[in-house]
Amino acid sequence: MRIALINPNTTASMTRKMAAAASAVAGPSTEIAAITAAMGPASIEGYYDEALAVPGLLKELRNAEAGGADAAIIGCFDDTGLDAARAMSTIPVLGLCEAALSLAGFLAKRISVVTTDLRARVPIEELVERYGMAGKVRVRAAGIPVLELDNPRSTAISRLKAEIAQALEADNAEAIVLGCAGMADLAASLQQEFGVPVIDGVVAAARQAEALVSLNLRTSKRGAYAYPAQKAYSGYLFDK
Amino acid sequence: MRIALINPNTTASMTRKMAAAASAVAGPSTEIAAITAAMGPASIEGYYDEALAVPGLLKELRNAEAGGADAAIIGCFDDTGLDAARAMSTIPVLGLCEAALSLAGFLAKRISVVTTDLRARVPIEELVERYGMAGKVRVRAAGIPVLELDNPRSTAISRLKAEIAQALEADNAEAIVLGCAGMADLAASLQQEFGVPVIDGVVAAARQAEALVSLNLRTSKRGAYAYPAQKAYSGYLFDK
Amino acid sequence: MRIALINPNTTASMTRKMAAAASAVAGPSTEIAAITAAMGPASIEGYYDEALAVPGLLKELRNAEAGGADAAIIGCFDDTGLDAARAMSTIPVLGLCEAALSLAGFLAKRISVVTTDLRARVPIEELVERYGMAGKVRVRAAGIPVLELDNPRSTAISRLKAEIAQALEADNAEAIVLGCAGMADLAASLQQEFGVPVIDGVVAAARQAEALVSLNLRTSKRGAYAYPAQKAYSGYLFDK
Amino acid sequence: MRIALINPNTTASMTRKMAAAASAVAGPSTEIAAITAAMGPASIEGYYDEALAVPGLLKELRNAEAGGADAAIIGCFDDTGLDAARAMSTIPVLGLCEAALSLAGFLAKRISVVTTDLRARVPIEELVERYGMAGKVRVRAAGIPVLELDNPRSTAISRLKAEIAQALEADNAEAIVLGCAGMADLAASLQQEFGVPVIDGVVAAARQAEALVSLNLRTSKRGAYAYPAQKAYSGYLFDK
Amino acid sequence: MRIALINPNTTASMTRKMAAAASAVAGPSTEIAAITAAMGPASIEGYYDEALAVPGLLKELRNAEAGGADAAIIGCFDDTGLDAARAMSTIPVLGLCEAALSLAGFLAKRISVVTTDLRARVPIEELVERYGMAGKVRVRAAGIPVLELDNPRSTAISRLKAEIAQALEADNAEAIVLGCAGMADLAASLQQEFGVPVIDGVVAAARQAEALVSLNLRTSKRGAYAYPAQKAYSGYLFDK
Amino acid sequence: MRIALINPNTTASMTRKMAAAASAVAGPSTEIAAITAAMGPASIEGYYDEALAVPGLLKELRNAEAGGADAAIIGCFDDTGLDAARAMSTIPVLGLCEAALSLAGFLAKRISVVTTDLRARVPIEELVERYGMAGKVRVRAAGIPVLELDNPRSTAISRLKAEIAQALEADNAEAIVLGCAGMADLAASLQQEFGVPVIDGVVAAARQAEALVSLNLRTSKRGAYAYPAQKAYSGYLFDK
Repeated sequence: MRIALINPNTTASMTRKMAAAASAVAGPSTEIAAITAAMGPASIEGYYDEALAVPGLLKELRNAEAGGADAAIIGCFDDTGLDAARAMSTIPVLGLCEAALSLAGFLAKRISVVTTDLRARVPIEELVERYGMAGKVRVRAAGIPVLELDNPRSTAISRLKAEIAQALEADNAEAIVLGCAGMADLAASLQQEFGVPVIDGVVAAARQAEALVSLNLRTSKRGAYAYPAQKAYSGYLFDK
Repeated sequence: MRIALINPNTTASMTRKMAAAASAVAGPSTEIAAITAAMGPASIEGYYDEALAVPGLLKELRNAEAGGADAAIIGCFDDTGLDAARAMSTIPVLGLCEAALSLAGFLAKRISVVTTDLRARVPIEELVERYGMAGKVRVRAAGIPVLELDNPRSTAISRLKAEIAQALEADNAEAIVLGCAGMADLAASLQQEFGVPVIDGVVAAARQAEALVSLNLRTSKRGAYAYPAQKAYSGYLFDK
Repeated sequence: MRIALINPNTTASMTRKMAAAASAVAGPSTEIAAITAAMGPASIEGYYDEALAVPGLLKELRNAEAGGADAAIIGCFDDTGLDAARAMSTIPVLGLCEAALSLAGFLAKRISVVTTDLRARVPIEELVERYGMAGKVRVRAAGIPVLELDNPRSTAISRLKAEIAQALEADNAEAIVLGCAGMADLAASLQQEFGVPVIDGVVAAARQAEALVSLNLRTSKRGAYAYPAQKAYSGYLFDK
Repeated sequence: MRIALINPNTTASMTRKMAAAASAVAGPSTEIAAITAAMGPASIEGYYDEALAVPGLLKELRNAEAGGADAAIIGCFDDTGLDAARAMSTIPVLGLCEAALSLAGFLAKRISVVTTDLRARVPIEELVERYGMAGKVRVRAAGIPVLELDNPRSTAISRLKAEIAQALEADNAEAIVLGCAGMADLAASLQQEFGVPVIDGVVAAARQAEALVSLNLRTSKRGAYAYPAQKAYSGYLFDK
Repeated sequence: MRIALINPNTTASMTRKMAAAASAVAGPSTEIAAITAAMGPASIEGYYDEALAVPGLLKELRNAEAGGADAAIIGCFDDTGLDAARAMSTIPVLGLCEAALSLAGFLAKRISVVTTDLRARVPIEELVERYGMAGKVRVRAAGIPVLELDNPRSTAISRLKAEIAQALEADNAEAIVLGCAGMADLAASLQQEFGVPVIDGVVAAARQAEALVSLNLRTSKRGAYAYPAQKAYSGYLFDK
Repeated sequence: MRIALINPNTTASMTRKMAAAASAVAGPSTEIAAITAAMGPASIEGYYDEALAVPGLLKELRNAEAGGADAAIIGCFDDTGLDAARAMSTIPVLGLCEAALSLAGFLAKRISVVTTDLRARVPIEELVERYGMAGKVRVRAAGIPVLELDNPRSTAISRLKAEIAQALEADNAEAIVLGCAGMADLAASLQQEFGVPVIDGVVAAARQAEALVSLNLRTSKRGAYAYPAQKAYSGYLFDK
């Protein structure tokens, strides 16, 4: 089984971090094929970045599906381009936010997502609403630029921990979801430290993708995710 | 006052139809600057088309704002790229769906949107939900490809009328919203025929844009619509 | 075009303030016909005042429509009597709260309404819920009696500003809606001071009323807003 | 214990019907003091009638409370003026719709309200939404003018029965709520005929009013139902 | 009229306290038959205790109905086993939470439930959601083990009062609902002390049960509460 | 890895069918330990059966956890006793309904659950509501007693297929969820026949359980799922 893990931003170090996390949990016969988008923003913080990340993502997804991938993961917690990706393909496509929230809902009744940049808080709140979990989930931003997560001299990690502590205290959180793909390497130690489940979307999506493939379940091609109609698409380097 | 009316699909005849509708209702000192995107799909039917229309739309919006536009309208009923557009600009940006639903809510308690292609029904239902009108609004698709609306030999218009009749009968609709920018020329005659308010999003958005400009109201740059952070955007022909 | 701006309370100074605000933004060919209700409370603070304001309001609306008004505005942020007004007339009728919230939703994702008296907070929260914006909008009362807004020696303005500051801080508000018709003269300076959109319902409603008239859109007379049935109404000075 | 049963419309035959129903179920030491409003419409069908019924209702409520009533019932299924009534008094005030829905919720998971006039359907749907029961309750109008319920030659009863049959079949209704005070005499025979609970609001409210009084529970005077502030009310025959 | 008041936990002192409260408010011809479950937990704090309390409760309900009870009350604020109880019987069955919330909604717009153990907060929040009152009701836990309520040396009462004071201040509560059957004896004095309605579920349910019986209303046997199908139930001491 | 698959009803043939389905999809190192409850109803159709199934289920869960199970599945589509099970254990516990709906949401926007007995429809609708999917999911009952699914002479399968066809037609369903554990053997052939994803809860739960275990995620013991407090539980054969 091959799962394409597509990073919709152009920062290869984030791709490597995600790939390591996903490979560590994938089954023995699963290959994680990690891909960095060539077109798009260096990180995804808010609506504008999301929008500009989508065409590059779709291009990589087309290539991956043509190349035999059995499922795909969009490696961004904003679930950027998820509906478009599903509409254009038949293999299952997973987003990090929905995958993480779905597992979190199996473990706890009150959940807090802790994300990075302030621009990302409302978009994630809208995802929570769309996934029907507004009654259970609160979203907090630690005020960290995404790319600082990789800077060892940054105070990003300590700010993240302070926000988790606040979530437990003020939100009565029973579990924590890490709201950025760049936190994939932190889940285990944070779970150890705080004593509640800490869920990372990358590994959540990897295991859900494997589940769907093994169950022979693919994206519905009836209704909202029907294949796009035949028409001209101007100005794109990849044909539809 | 200059309002940029940006058609995010590449079909110039639709742009002309929208421009005519908007110009007919705009105030005497308002210029409607109609623009057809150079990059994107020929029509927008569902999630995939929406996603690929956004970068071309944002490029035209950037040019329009730089060129002195006071407000902008995204000429598509799916409100394609609306949040991204707002995040990148400070002039008000209007979508057709939210503009039309907002006026419809001033006139009636039960409203039906009648759109074209089946792929567009669920995305519009999601907009209705997001705009908080799920309790008031039903969405119907007449099963018409968008580009057939301009074909005089098509049965598109008669299918549209049949769907409106159904909405009045089965949904108890008190007003009709036309769920496609390509129907902008039909509102007056349909209102005449069916005896209920028939709202087109193009003119609704044009008048709302004028209202915002005249009231000196601009997109908030605090929180969700804060300007994008400085970062690299690879592979785009326009700089951020 | 003539727009009747009906103040449903009996305080003429508030009517003048609203009329000035509306006239300042109305189009060159629009006449704002401001009317103070003869029957009702001196200000509207809570459910009881609302209820007693309605018959006087309806009487003025009937006169205004008979006199040729093209649209009407109910000059109270509680949208007092709005549904009854629409049911009895065919010209468009606008409320301040729905008009302001509708424009605010075009500019920001998180909005705080700041109103005066504590009795008005829950009624406005119920309007927010009814207009489908409970996920986006918080309501705060500054603890100011309505009629104090006109008292130059009052601390009303400073309390209002303190509440706006709280909304930005604690609610993450991205835009402010002024929750009382008596604040119509404050919007511009508050917007200047706080650096976020500040929306007043009077001018919002005036521009929306103009929009509806120019688009030839009138209240639906099918269903909820159908004309009242013929019957006796005892004890009123105006016939139905 | 004295319970004021105030009919907010001016049709005394409806008052008598309600009084008979309420008296039949009230406890031995409870006096039902039935009052017909002197000011207002002959029947209440939709928003306009509701609005014009409120001042007359409030006047009778003031008199009743001053005269020693322990609780009051607003004898109309639209819960006309309920919030205003509670704000002005301290005795408990009950509406028929909320009383009936509350009992119905103890007996069944899926409930249909069957009302009379088409103008009343949406207002009752809004009450259902406000009372948090939109997931459980459907509303149907049988297309019957209210005052026809008393006409022995009318087909009103057979149309009502046909609508109940439809509710059981199409809505999977498990209980029926009669959506008009003028149906108070029909509940027992309809329950017998259809084999499901049939709930009338008049008797539901009477028993709930008794319950509140016996439990020494009165309307909260903190917050939304605080007493009206001192101010002038022009043009009313009764002082506040 | 005989009303079975079944305590689903095994602590007889709580049964006695509830019985005293219910008997004090019941009508002169009503007998409160109080029963302590023989099988189940000593107190009900959270999901696990709830689940293990149900079979013992159902057994007592079966006996009570067979013995001629006209209605039953489940004496626990979690409304433990309520749906199962209704499905197996035809007499009305009341839960404390729904009965108390229903009365509270007649008296106030913003309500806080104050309960005991932290494990009970989320289950009660879920009941509030299910009863459609999430927009009106907040839930607080005072951190008191249920059985401490009867310990005169405990600080339970002072912690409860502190939590009520917080509810008034921070939640803008207009009425308080006591979220544990073991607080039935405290309602009157707390209402006196805090000056807002304080509602206890035991007496609320007792009066609602009387109301249903007097109105000849019984649990619907159509749909969700249809009698269980005939089948084997292994391992229970009472036959279905 | 050992996953306990506990059938909360007492019919061993259903256990065998579920075990076969789960074993067929489980990973090579996963053991499915299937258990039939000794105490409870022969099938679970509605609230009453659910309630009586829980103690037997909890007993088996306690034994399974003590015996070293890494996760558990409750083999009933009603998610019977799920919250209680989670509160008493630390290993992950999955319900069929939430597992199936969660996967279905990755594949389609509009989903129909098709279940068996009419008594189960409303309880499943309540689960859908609780899992936040009421906007996406419809529930249909085919009117089949659960135990007829195993009867080769029954018309159960043809009735089930007719209901699926209706869901596609009338609900615009894009995917089907099988609403009974006893349908686990039918998913593949129905998916083949109807051309949309058909999701069975047993295999969905099995794969999700494996995912949670492999990710080292366990039930939160903070808040709603905290371990039960120490107390007496009378009348049960297993100690807490």
